[in-house]
Amino acid sequence: MKVIHYSDIPPISMVHPSVKNVAGRVMIGKEDGAANFCMRRFEIGADGFTPKHSHDWEHEVWVLEGQGEVFIEDQWHALKGGTAVFVPPNVEHQFRNTGDATFAFLCLVPSQAPEI
Amino acid sequence: MKVIHYSDIPPISMVHPSVKNVAGRVMIGKEDGAANFCMRRFEIGADGFTPKHSHDWEHEVWVLEGQGEVFIEDQWHALKGGTAVFVPPNVEHQFRNTGDATFAFLCLVPSQAPEI
Repeated sequence: MKVIHYSDIPPISMVHPSVKNVAGRVMIGKEDGAANFCMRRFEIGADGFTPKHSHDWEHEVWVLEGQGEVFIEDQWHALKGGTAVFVPPNVEHQFRNTGDATFAFLCLVPSQAPEI
Repeated sequence: MKVIHYSDIPPISMVHPSVKNVAGRVMIGKEDGAANFCMRRFEIGADGFTPKHSHDWEHEVWVLEGQGEVFIEDQWHALKGGTAVFVPPNVEHQFRNTGDATFAFLCLVPSQAPEI
Protein backbone atom coordinates (compact mmCIF):
# COMPACT_ATOMS: atom_id res chain seq x y z
CA MET A 1 0.00 0.00 0.00
CA LYS A 2 1.25 3.48 -0.82
CA VAL A 3 -0.25 6.97 -0.63
CA ILE A 4 2.20 9.70 -1.63
CA HIS A 5 2.13 13.21 -3.08
CA TYR A 6 4.49 13.73 -5.98
CA SER A 7 6.16 16.65 -4.22
CA ASP A 8 7.47 14.17 -1.63
CA ILE A 9 9.53 12.33 -4.28
CA PRO A 10 12.67 14.15 -5.50
CA PRO A 11 12.79 14.53 -9.30
CA ILE A 12 15.61 12.84 -11.21
CA SER A 13 17.07 14.89 -14.06
CA MET A 14 17.46 13.04 -17.35
CA VAL A 15 20.95 13.75 -18.69
CA HIS A 16 21.53 12.73 -22.30
CA PRO A 17 22.37 14.64 -25.51
CA SER A 18 18.93 13.76 -26.95
CA VAL A 19 17.05 15.16 -23.92
CA LYS A 20 16.64 18.76 -22.71
CA ASN A 21 15.10 20.05 -19.45
CA VAL A 22 13.38 16.80 -18.45
CA ALA A 23 13.04 15.35 -14.96
CA GLY A 24 11.06 12.35 -13.77
CA ARG A 25 9.81 10.68 -10.61
CA VAL A 26 8.77 7.05 -10.15
CA MET A 27 5.40 7.34 -8.41
CA ILE A 28 4.53 3.62 -8.25
CA GLY A 29 6.90 0.83 -9.26
CA LYS A 30 8.39 -2.56 -8.47
CA GLU A 31 9.67 -1.37 -5.07
CA ASP A 32 6.05 -0.84 -4.09
CA GLY A 33 5.03 -4.31 -5.27
CA ALA A 34 3.60 -3.12 -8.58
CA ALA A 35 4.26 -6.22 -10.71
CA ASN A 36 2.55 -5.25 -13.97
CA PHE A 37 3.15 -1.59 -14.76
CA CYS A 38 4.91 1.50 -13.48
CA MET A 39 3.63 5.08 -13.00
CA ARG A 40 6.09 7.93 -13.58
CA ARG A 41 5.52 11.70 -13.52
CA PHE A 42 7.62 13.79 -15.91
CA GLU A 43 8.21 17.52 -16.14
CA ILE A 44 9.60 19.24 -19.21
CA GLY A 45 10.87 22.78 -18.67
CA ALA A 46 10.70 25.61 -21.22
CA ASP A 47 12.30 24.64 -24.57
CA GLY A 48 12.69 21.07 -23.34
CA PHE A 49 12.06 17.75 -25.05
CA THR A 50 12.32 13.99 -24.55
CA PRO A 51 14.34 11.83 -26.97
CA LYS A 52 12.89 10.97 -30.37
CA HIS A 53 13.06 7.21 -30.12
CA SER A 54 11.15 3.94 -30.15
CA HIS A 55 11.20 0.78 -28.03
CA ASP A 56 9.27 -2.44 -27.76
CA TRP A 57 6.95 -1.31 -24.97
CA GLU A 58 3.97 1.03 -25.00
CA HIS A 59 3.33 4.33 -23.21
CA GLU A 60 0.06 5.33 -21.60
CA VAL A 61 0.28 9.09 -21.01
CA TRP A 62 -1.95 11.58 -19.19
CA VAL A 63 -1.22 15.28 -19.61
CA LEU A 64 -1.39 17.16 -16.31
CA GLU A 65 -0.47 20.77 -17.01
CA GLY A 66 1.21 23.13 -19.40
CA GLN A 67 1.33 23.08 -23.17
CA GLY A 68 3.15 20.54 -25.23
CA GLU A 69 3.16 18.32 -28.25
CA VAL A 70 3.81 14.69 -29.03
CA PHE A 71 5.33 13.46 -32.27
CA ILE A 72 3.84 10.14 -33.39
CA GLU A 73 3.62 8.69 -36.88
CA ASP A 74 5.30 11.70 -38.54
CA GLN A 75 2.93 14.26 -37.00
CA TRP A 76 2.98 16.62 -34.04
CA HIS A 77 -0.20 16.55 -31.92
CA ALA A 78 -1.05 19.40 -29.51
CA LEU A 79 -1.52 18.40 -25.88
CA LYS A 80 -3.14 20.06 -22.86
CA GLY A 81 -4.29 18.96 -19.41
CA GLY A 82 -6.80 16.11 -19.59
CA THR A 83 -5.48 14.61 -22.83
CA ALA A 84 -4.51 10.92 -22.92
CA VAL A 85 -1.96 9.53 -25.38
CA PHE A 86 -1.37 5.91 -26.28
CA VAL A 87 2.00 5.27 -27.93
CA PRO A 88 2.08 1.66 -29.17
CA PRO A 89 5.27 -0.43 -29.00
CA ASN A 90 7.89 0.22 -31.70
CA VAL A 91 6.44 3.57 -32.78
CA GLU A 92 8.81 6.53 -32.90
CA HIS A 93 7.72 9.32 -30.55
CA GLN A 94 8.88 12.48 -28.83
CA PHE A 95 7.36 14.94 -26.35
CA ARG A 96 8.22 18.64 -26.23
CA ASN A 97 7.19 21.72 -24.30
CA THR A 98 5.66 24.42 -26.49
CA GLY A 99 4.74 26.86 -23.70
CA ASP A 100 6.52 29.09 -21.20
CA ALA A 101 5.53 27.09 -18.11
CA THR A 102 6.37 23.54 -17.11
CA PHE A 103 4.73 20.83 -19.20
CA ALA A 104 3.93 17.88 -16.92
CA PHE A 105 2.49 14.46 -17.65
CA LEU A 106 2.18 10.95 -16.31
CA CYS A 107 3.76 8.21 -18.42
CA LEU A 108 3.03 4.59 -17.52
CA VAL A 109 4.98 1.64 -18.88
CA PRO A 110 4.72 -2.14 -18.51
CA SER A 111 7.04 -3.82 -16.03
CA GLN A 112 9.61 -4.96 -18.61
CA ALA A 113 10.52 -1.31 -19.34
CA PRO A 114 13.10 0.68 -17.36
CA GLU A 115 11.34 2.60 -14.58
CA ILE A 116 13.32 5.82 -15.06
CA MET B 1 -1.92 5.44 -31.69
CA LYS B 2 -4.46 7.55 -29.83
CA VAL B 3 -4.57 11.19 -28.71
CA ILE B 4 -7.86 12.11 -27.02
CA HIS B 5 -9.15 14.59 -24.45
CA TYR B 6 -11.28 13.02 -21.74
CA SER B 7 -14.17 15.38 -22.52
CA ASP B 8 -14.51 13.64 -25.90
CA ILE B 9 -15.38 10.32 -24.21
CA PRO B 10 -18.89 10.10 -22.69
CA PRO B 11 -18.87 9.07 -19.01
CA ILE B 12 -20.56 5.82 -18.02
CA SER B 13 -22.52 5.95 -14.75
CA MET B 14 -21.82 3.12 -12.33
CA VAL B 15 -25.18 1.78 -11.11
CA HIS B 16 -24.98 -0.56 -8.13
CA PRO B 17 -26.30 -0.41 -4.53
CA SER B 18 -22.71 -0.19 -3.23
CA VAL B 19 -21.86 2.83 -5.43
CA LYS B 20 -23.08 6.43 -5.30
CA ASN B 21 -22.48 9.27 -7.81
CA VAL B 22 -19.65 7.61 -9.71
CA ALA B 23 -18.99 7.75 -13.44
CA GLY B 24 -16.04 6.45 -15.43
CA ARG B 25 -14.43 6.65 -18.86
CA VAL B 26 -12.00 4.21 -20.46
CA MET B 27 -9.22 6.47 -21.73
CA ILE B 28 -6.89 3.74 -23.07
CA GLY B 29 -7.79 0.05 -23.25
CA LYS B 30 -7.76 -3.15 -25.26
CA GLU B 31 -9.68 -1.52 -28.14
CA ASP B 32 -6.71 0.79 -28.62
CA GLY B 33 -4.22 -2.10 -28.63
CA ALA B 34 -3.18 -1.64 -24.99
CA ALA B 35 -2.30 -5.22 -24.12
CA ASN B 36 -0.91 -4.82 -20.60
CA PHE B 37 -2.94 -2.26 -18.64
CA CYS B 38 -5.93 0.03 -18.95
CA MET B 39 -6.32 3.74 -18.07
CA ARG B 40 -9.69 4.90 -16.74
CA ARG B 41 -10.77 8.34 -15.45
CA PHE B 42 -13.37 8.37 -12.67
CA GLU B 43 -15.46 11.19 -11.22
CA ILE B 44 -17.19 10.98 -7.87
CA GLY B 45 -19.88 13.61 -7.26
CA ALA B 46 -20.71 15.18 -3.88
CA ASP B 47 -21.50 12.56 -1.21
CA GLY B 48 -20.44 9.83 -3.61
CA PHE B 49 -18.33 6.71 -3.09
CA THR B 50 -17.02 3.62 -4.87
CA PRO B 51 -17.73 0.13 -3.50
CA LYS B 52 -15.80 -1.14 -0.48
CA HIS B 53 -14.40 -4.29 -2.03
CA SER B 54 -11.30 -6.25 -2.96
CA HIS B 55 -10.18 -8.20 -6.03
CA ASP B 56 -7.09 -10.01 -7.22
CA TRP B 57 -5.69 -7.11 -9.29
CA GLU B 58 -3.98 -3.91 -8.23
CA HIS B 59 -4.94 -0.25 -8.73
CA GLU B 60 -2.52 2.52 -9.65
CA VAL B 61 -4.36 5.78 -8.93
CA TRP B 62 -3.53 9.44 -9.60
CA VAL B 63 -5.72 12.09 -8.00
CA LEU B 64 -6.61 14.88 -10.44
CA GLU B 65 -8.91 17.29 -8.61
CA GLY B 66 -11.25 17.72 -5.71
CA GLN B 67 -11.03 16.36 -2.19
CA GLY B 68 -11.45 12.74 -1.28
CA GLU B 69 -10.29 9.84 0.81
CA VAL B 70 -9.27 6.26 0.22
CA PHE B 71 -9.89 3.48 2.71
CA ILE B 72 -7.05 0.94 2.76
CA GLU B 73 -5.98 -1.39 5.55
CA ASP B 74 -8.63 -0.13 8.00
CA GLN B 75 -7.69 3.55 7.63
CA TRP B 76 -8.97 6.52 5.64
CA HIS B 77 -6.22 8.52 3.90
CA ALA B 78 -6.83 12.10 2.68
CA LEU B 79 -6.28 12.70 -1.04
CA LYS B 80 -5.75 15.80 -3.16
CA GLY B 81 -4.51 16.57 -6.68
CA GLY B 82 -1.04 15.16 -7.28
CA THR B 83 -1.34 12.23 -4.88
CA ALA B 84 -0.66 8.70 -6.13
CA VAL B 85 -2.18 5.61 -4.51
CA PHE B 86 -1.11 2.00 -4.95
CA VAL B 87 -3.75 -0.50 -3.89
CA PRO B 88 -2.21 -4.00 -3.97
CA PRO B 89 -4.22 -7.03 -5.08
CA ASN B 90 -6.64 -8.53 -2.53
CA VAL B 91 -6.67 -5.47 -0.26
CA GLU B 92 -10.07 -4.03 0.67
CA HIS B 93 -10.44 -0.42 -0.49
CA GLN B 94 -12.95 2.34 -1.11
CA PHE B 95 -12.80 5.90 -2.48
CA ARG B 96 -15.15 8.68 -1.39
CA ASN B 97 -15.67 12.36 -2.07
CA THR B 98 -15.26 14.50 1.05
CA GLY B 99 -15.68 17.90 -0.66
CA ASP B 100 -18.42 19.87 -2.38
CA ALA B 101 -16.93 19.68 -5.88
CA THR B 102 -16.26 16.69 -8.11
CA PHE B 103 -13.48 14.38 -6.95
CA ALA B 104 -11.68 13.02 -10.03
CA PHE B 105 -8.87 10.51 -10.41
CA LEU B 106 -7.21 8.15 -12.83
CA CYS B 107 -7.33 4.46 -11.93
CA LEU B 108 -5.21 2.04 -13.94
CA VAL B 109 -5.63 -1.72 -13.84
CA PRO B 110 -3.82 -4.66 -15.45
CA SER B 111 -5.42 -6.21 -18.52
CA GLN B 112 -7.04 -9.13 -16.69
CA ALA B 113 -9.36 -6.71 -14.83
CA PRO B 114 -12.68 -5.43 -16.21
CA GLU B 115 -12.11 -2.13 -18.04
CA ILE B 116 -15.20 -0.40 -16.64
